[in-house]
Formats: sequence, C-alpha cells, structure tokens
Amino acid sequence: MVIQYDTIRPIRFDNKKLYLIDQRVLPTKKTEIEYTSSAQVAAAIKDMVVRGAPAIGITAAYAVVLAAIQRYAEDSKNWKRLIQQDIQFLAESRPTAVNLFWALNKMQTHINNLQGDPFSPLKTVADDIHQQDIEANYTMGKIGAELIVQQSAAVLTHCNAGALATGGYGTALGVIRSAYADKKIIKVYADETRPWLQGARLTAWEMLQDNIPVTLIAESAAASLMQQGKISWVIVGADRIAANGDVANKIGTYGLAILARYHRVKFMVAAPTTTIDMNITQGQDIPIEQRSSDEVLHCSEHRVAAEGAQAWNPAFDVTPANLVDAIVTEKGFIENPNTIKIASLMSGGSNKI
Amino acid sequence: MVIQYDTIRPIRFDNKKLYLIDQRVLPTKKTEIEYTSSAQVAAAIKDMVVRGAPAIGITAAYAVVLAAIQRYAEDSKNWKRLIQQDIQFLAESRPTAVNLFWALNKMQTHINNLQGDPFSPLKTVADDIHQQDIEANYTMGKIGAELIVQQSAAVLTHCNAGALATGGYGTALGVIRSAYADKKIIKVYADETRPWLQGARLTAWEMLQDNIPVTLIAESAAASLMQQGKISWVIVGADRIAANGDVANKIGTYGLAILARYHRVKFMVAAPTTTIDMNITQGQDIPIEQRSSDEVLHCSEHRVAAEGAQAWNPAFDVTPANLVDAIVTEKGFIENPNTIKIASLMSGGSNKI
Repeated sequence: MVIQYDTIRPIRFDNKKLYLIDQRVLPTKKTEIEYTSSAQVAAAIKDMVVRGAPAIGITAAYAVVLAAIQRYAEDSKNWKRLIQQDIQFLAESRPTAVNLFWALNKMQTHINNLQGDPFSPLKTVADDIHQQDIEANYTMGKIGAELIVQQSAAVLTHCNAGALATGGYGTALGVIRSAYADKKIIKVYADETRPWLQGARLTAWEMLQDNIPVTLIAESAAASLMQQGKISWVIVGADRIAANGDVANKIGTYGLAILARYHRVKFMVAAPTTTIDMNITQGQDIPIEQRSSDEVLHCSEHRVAAEGAQAWNPAFDVTPANLVDAIVTEKGFIENPNTIKIASLMSGGSNKI
Repeated sequence: MVIQYDTIRPIRFDNKKLYLIDQRVLPTKKTEIEYTSSAQVAAAIKDMVVRGAPAIGITAAYAVVLAAIQRYAEDSKNWKRLIQQDIQFLAESRPTAVNLFWALNKMQTHINNLQGDPFSPLKTVADDIHQQDIEANYTMGKIGAELIVQQSAAVLTHCNAGALATGGYGTALGVIRSAYADKKIIKVYADETRPWLQGARLTAWEMLQDNIPVTLIAESAAASLMQQGKISWVIVGADRIAANGDVANKIGTYGLAILARYHRVKFMVAAPTTTIDMNITQGQDIPIEQRSSDEVLHCSEHRVAAEGAQAWNPAFDVTPANLVDAIVTEKGFIENPNTIKIASLMSGGSNKI
C-alpha cells in the first residue's frame, strides 16, 4: 500500500495576491513573500525565491493572473496587448526549465479566447495547473515506487525535487515519499548540492518534516557511496527532457548518472510530462543557464574562495538518455528512454512501453 | 625548459620552535602558529592546521624533535623510553596519510642509534626530510610536465596538493606549476573541494600567488567540464598508494577518475615515494578516516544544513589502479600502475617502466 499525504506547499494564491515561501533563506527562516505584480514575480524566479521546474511553471501562471488584473484595470480594451510584455519578461526569467514556457503558453492560449474581466477565468486555469501538478506528483510517486523492486533500499537524490520544487509532494521526493511509506526505501542520502545547497537546506528539511531519515553527503562522496554498495537507486527530477529522452537537470546529475552506470546502480528521473519538450530533438539543444560565479565563490552569503579566483557555474547539465534507466511521469514510465518511447508516452501510452 | 621557482612554505622550524601556517583560516588570514610541544602539534595535525600527506610527515618529524628536546631535558637517561608516548600520540593524529608513519619510523630509527643530546642530530634528520620533499616535488614537476603531450592544455585538480600540502612547490600543483611555466598548461580548473574547501581556499590562493589562471568549479560541474572537452588531464596528489597502485586521496578523487575514464581524459597521480605503502597490498586495506559530520553540515563556521540532518563524511576514497593513467614520483613515472611496476619503481627503476 502506498500512502499519500499532504506536504508543504511553496506557492499560494489568495485574495488576488501570490505568496511564495522564500527558498533562499530556508531552513533558517520560513517566511512567505507577498507579490502583487508579475514583474516582482519574474525577479523572484530569477533570484530563486522559488525554484524547481514545476514550481516555476505554476508561479509563472499565477504571475500572469497578477499581470491580467493590473493590465485590465489599466486599460480594459487593450489589456491583451499590454500583457505581452509581462509574459515576455516572465519568459526571460530563467532559460532551462521548460515548464515556465509551457505554463506561459497555456495562459496565453486562454487569454486569446477571453472576453470581459480576465481574473476569474485565468485564476481557474492557474489553479488547475497547480492542482494537476500535485496530482501528477502523487501518481508519479506511486508509479516510481513500484519500479523499486528492492526491499529496504537506500537511495541517493540530488538537489531538491520535492514539494518545494513543485505544487506539493514532489517528483523525485514524491517517489521517495511513496516508496518510504511502502517500506521499499528505508534511508535517503542527499547530495548537499553546491553551490546553492538545495540538498542541505531544502531536501534535508523536507525529509525531516516527514520523519524520513536523511543523510547528507558532499557531492564528492557519491562515488564512494556507490562503491561501498550503500545505495540501489539514484532518483532525481528534471528541468527539461528532450524528445529523445536526454535530461537537463541540476548540475551534477550527469556525473551521478555516469557513476551509477559504472556501479550498476539504477538511475530514475521523475518529472511530469509538462517537463518534456517535444520541440527539442536532443539534449545538447537545451539552453543551459550560466549563473553568477559568486554562487561558487561564496557559501550562503559568506565569501569562501580566494580573492581573485574565477568560477564556472553552469546551473544544469545534460544526461544522455542512454544513461537513464527509467523516466517516470504521471502518464506512466518508460525504461531505457528513446525518441519512440517518449513519443508513445506523450500520446498516452501505457505504464510500460 | 621547465622553470623551477620557490613557493610558500607551510612549515618552518626556527630556534627550537615549529611554526605552521594556519590552513584553517587561509586565505582570509595568513597567520603562523608557534609550537613548542609535540602534543600541541598532534592536535594541530588532527585539526588540520597543517594538512596534505607530505606536509603531515614533515610536521611530525619536527614534532619528534620538539618531543626529544622536552624529554631529554626532563630525564636525559630515560628520554628514549619517555618519547614513545609522544610518537604514539602523533601516530594517532590522522590514519590515512602514510607519510606520517613513514616520518615517525624514520625518526625512531635515528633515535635508536643516538648518544647524548638528541636535538641537533634529530633536527638534521627532520630538515633532510623537509628538504628532500621539496626536491622530490621539483623532480616530479619536471617528470609530470613531460607526460603532458598536449599544447596549451587545461587541467582539473582536486583538493590542494600544492606547496601548502608539502614542504613547498607541491605534488599535483608542482606538476601544474612546471607545465604552466613550460606553456603546456594554460588554464587550471580547481574543484572547490567540499566540505573543507581546500580548492577554493588553498589551491586558488596558491595559483593566484603565482599568477596562474584558476577557475573554481563545484565538484558537481566536473562531469560537464569533461563532456564539453574543456580539459585534457585530471592531476591529483595522494595520501597513500598501495603496493598494487590503488590510490587513497581526498574524497571525490575516485569519482573524478571514473568520469575521466568515461570521457577519455587522462588521470595523473603525483606523489613522492614516501606516499607509497609497500605493506598494503591493495587499496581496500587502506584505513579511511571518517571526519565529523559537522564539516558537511556547516560551510566554514556557518551552519548550512537543516537542523536534525545527519551527514556521512569520509575524508578519503580509494581509486583502483586500473583507473589511473600515470603515477608520477621523484623516482620516475609509471603508466597503468600495477604491483610489478610499483615494485620496480620503488627499487629505483627508470622513468618509464
């Protein structure tokens, strides 16, 4: 039996305002920031107040609602034209997670067909995106847990693909939550995930809230962990999956996939189909965000590197499909992904293709 | 032409006192700490005021000199018996770097044969250990640079195997210094090396002092760096090399070796023969130090991880010989190391065996 339960929700829309848990300061402080304009929200996405591909998509959808409220109040005749710059500004906030563009496209399509005050109908669309993401996570949790045939396994996850990265429950952490509830997983190792420490700050915090035992490691210890036979699976999320099954995800994912294959550890990617970009043929075409070198030169707000040193700080890497054992989505899972299997999955294929 | 030049020296003995640069606070502060007792020095090794296998060996040799001064003053008849507990205490400071035990054994052998005041003869032995280490590094630098057949290569190093880890000049960084002077290397990438940040704090600082361009990366970016063809070699030091060529070195080295092999990047280990332990048949028999989880749960002195999280923090890992392309020592280099080649090298084989 797989137990499904509620988790923290990083995104909340209430009384024409958007509230985001500030993930920059977790777990030290748990604070919500209130947003009333889409420009503020675009800045929040860029600055990683909210992060994680599905969460960025949901946030952008609500930001479009805020923009529609403002533009319709400004000029109820021309608001559909005026809102284009808001949508464009949101689209420029971060380049890699495709859920952002998926959500903006979905909102745009509804805007095109609207008459009258856009608030209520657009909020309904954003709420649906939000709710469907949470439901997709529960479904993925169940499907992913079924793939773990080991009993009492330990697994490694990278970055934070949890409730905080989604509408709630999480993708990779959704699978881990479901498998833990089902006693298939009894221990979770989490990469601390430099430079932003999503693992140490967010994943550890989420797991502890649910009383799931979590042991942090420096990324550099992952190979030793596998060498010593301590884990059965690596389970991660995704920021964009190409049509051939190549996976863009947090920097370090590609290295973990190589190490997993070398040690015959299984490698699972859990992501909703909104993360699959059928317009991108292969992973090398996915735009990879380069972030400020300051993130590497500092740890939290404290300078750690020698003055004068430079840093290279790509936020994501691309894992080729041939290193992925399974992609789990709300529509089912595929093993050893390729173009044909992804296409079949997207058109509503069965659990196993 | 390979230029050899002087570098920072982390260890200094003057007027019956030992001075160590405090590597815990570099590069923010450059301070020396003065030591007059071997117990203090053992604590300094344990707490990583000084670190790096060759530097630990040299430091321990000077600590024995301090112990001899004290014990001979206390009881000139029984000092050789009394000093045994000092040597034992030093031996228990850190378990993995074999240079520590090599240096203590060498000092013990000289103690056994001493008559009268031990200070001057023992100081001479310690000075010799120190000086020979520096000379070994210059020799390794030259040999290692010759192995780099690429022109204008970029390389990746891990942790700090530099002047600060040795008597001076460095092992891996000695090779890099020599190859940079010879224009074979034009760019150095350095892993920041969590949790202790030897790369960000020490390696970057050393390279910048010598005007060698250095770009830091999070460990998680190493695979991407190789995938994009940005580096030709990974060059690291070692804490202990088994008789079959297996290499214990800073946690993360093993993973880099796998990634290097996967991407057809060459993998070089530079270490003096004092790091080779002919009494250890294979790497899995090398004792691996587990350090406090606090190192992972914090970054410098600042807590980063969620309260309640645990951490797994092995300080070293073991890279099997079959992933090593070359071991460079002051006695020459060997490619694709194995038991026969290591034995031949130790008995004074030629540069290429």
